[in-house]
Amino acid sequence: MSGSLVVIGLGPGNPDQITPEASRAVAEASHFFGYKPYLDRIELRPDQTRVASDNREEISRSNAALDMAASGHHVAVVSGGDPGVFAMAAAVCEAIEAGPRAWRDIELSVVPGVTAMLAVAARVGAPLGHDFCAINLSDNLKPWDLIERRLVAVARAGFVISLYNPISKARPWQLGSALETLRKHLPATTPVIFGRAAGRPDERIEIFTLGEADAAKADMATCVVIGSPETRLIERDGKPPLVYTPRFSAGAAK
Amino acid sequence: MSGSLVVIGLGPGNPDQITPEASRAVAEASHFFGYKPYLDRIELRPDQTRVASDNREEISRSNAALDMAASGHHVAVVSGGDPGVFAMAAAVCEAIEAGPRAWRDIELSVVPGVTAMLAVAARVGAPLGHDFCAINLSDNLKPWDLIERRLVAVARAGFVISLYNPISKARPWQLGSALETLRKHLPATTPVIFGRAAGRPDERIEIFTLGEADAAKADMATCVVIGSPETRLIERDGKPPLVYTPRFSAGAAK
Repeated sequence: MSGSLVVIGLGPGNPDQITPEASRAVAEASHFFGYKPYLDRIELRPDQTRVASDNREEISRSNAALDMAASGHHVAVVSGGDPGVFAMAAAVCEAIEAGPRAWRDIELSVVPGVTAMLAVAARVGAPLGHDFCAINLSDNLKPWDLIERRLVAVARAGFVISLYNPISKARPWQLGSALETLRKHLPATTPVIFGRAAGRPDERIEIFTLGEADAAKADMATCVVIGSPETRLIERDGKPPLVYTPRFSAGAAK
Repeated sequence: MSGSLVVIGLGPGNPDQITPEASRAVAEASHFFGYKPYLDRIELRPDQTRVASDNREEISRSNAALDMAASGHHVAVVSGGDPGVFAMAAAVCEAIEAGPRAWRDIELSVVPGVTAMLAVAARVGAPLGHDFCAINLSDNLKPWDLIERRLVAVARAGFVISLYNPISKARPWQLGSALETLRKHLPATTPVIFGRAAGRPDERIEIFTLGEADAAKADMATCVVIGSPETRLIERDGKPPLVYTPRFSAGAAK
């Protein structure tokens, strides 16, 4: 007998940004798996159980959740942001493909959420108003030179670039190196946003130029948005500037 | 005296995917501006007024909303999906920059939402599980050759590609041309998802290969997601396949 597995996106961290669909999925599941800080965001009833794990154990967590679902339970795997963006939905799919055939019979669903770059963008204006991309800056699962080639390709093509997982204790130099690479292909005046914990009480949103952006000011909870050559600032008296990328383009990007 | 303007993202169309933050913003505003189908999604009280406009009148709509806010009202501009992704937040910023200096004093906020590609991805698995980009396929505001150059750059660099506004009555050939261009740079077996009205009663999600994908099957409400060379299908008995892009990459993309 097969149960169900739902991968739930809890949004950027502000409870007001959790969709009703996600809240209902939480209410309906019996067993919860996830990275502890995400599990800590939801309040469970006494009849609901949880298994917290570390943030680099996605596959073992997926296996445990699928195993529980295969035995007939209603299982939830929780993610911050959107579960499909550098998060648990892909890990669960990888585990299904590699796992026992019976796991393909599990009723699988994914509940989308507001992903970090959208929450950060909303706090400053509309930096993602034109074509944009999202790159996971972690080189745990792909070679660094591939990341560099991608950064160059999208910078030269005029995309706004969102960097997820920009820095961690185990990956201290990668964001600095990425900014160095981008400085060779974008104007020094390009706006760069370091958006930390958008919408949460400890939110910190800072706007720099690419020339002055300092990787040391980012941490694991930061999403970095790098403008295109067309991204602009609107100065305002007594308020932070607005940052936006116009919807139109003259076609100047190469 | 300056009022406020909030740009609200209503998500992909399923009321269960509207965040509590967006619902509260709707409750607090007095005057609403937007494209009629988006305004029709929200129920207003008798003391709230609305001005519906056509979907290609973003700047005149922004000007009217800013004018109303500048005279002290609490104004809302509503968008489908996320307002920062090819939607009203950038148009409002453009209008502020070009408008009277007093508009910069208006209390501006943006409420993020679940954007279409996230809702579509959630319905099929995790196609955005690795690096991805979003391109507005409309050439109303940028030249077509720039769009083509961007498609080639990101396909060659191994990004999953989400296409917004792929087709309309006034732009009948662009999606077909984009698919033709991508066929020169990606395997014919690359999974392509046509995600129409994800989460709504009239939802239609179809999975093709790039070789067989037919632009005529898309419409204005469709978000097209084109896999990278690493995007995979998991076949399941009696269910549609899962589509996902693994989190890891061997670095095969050029």
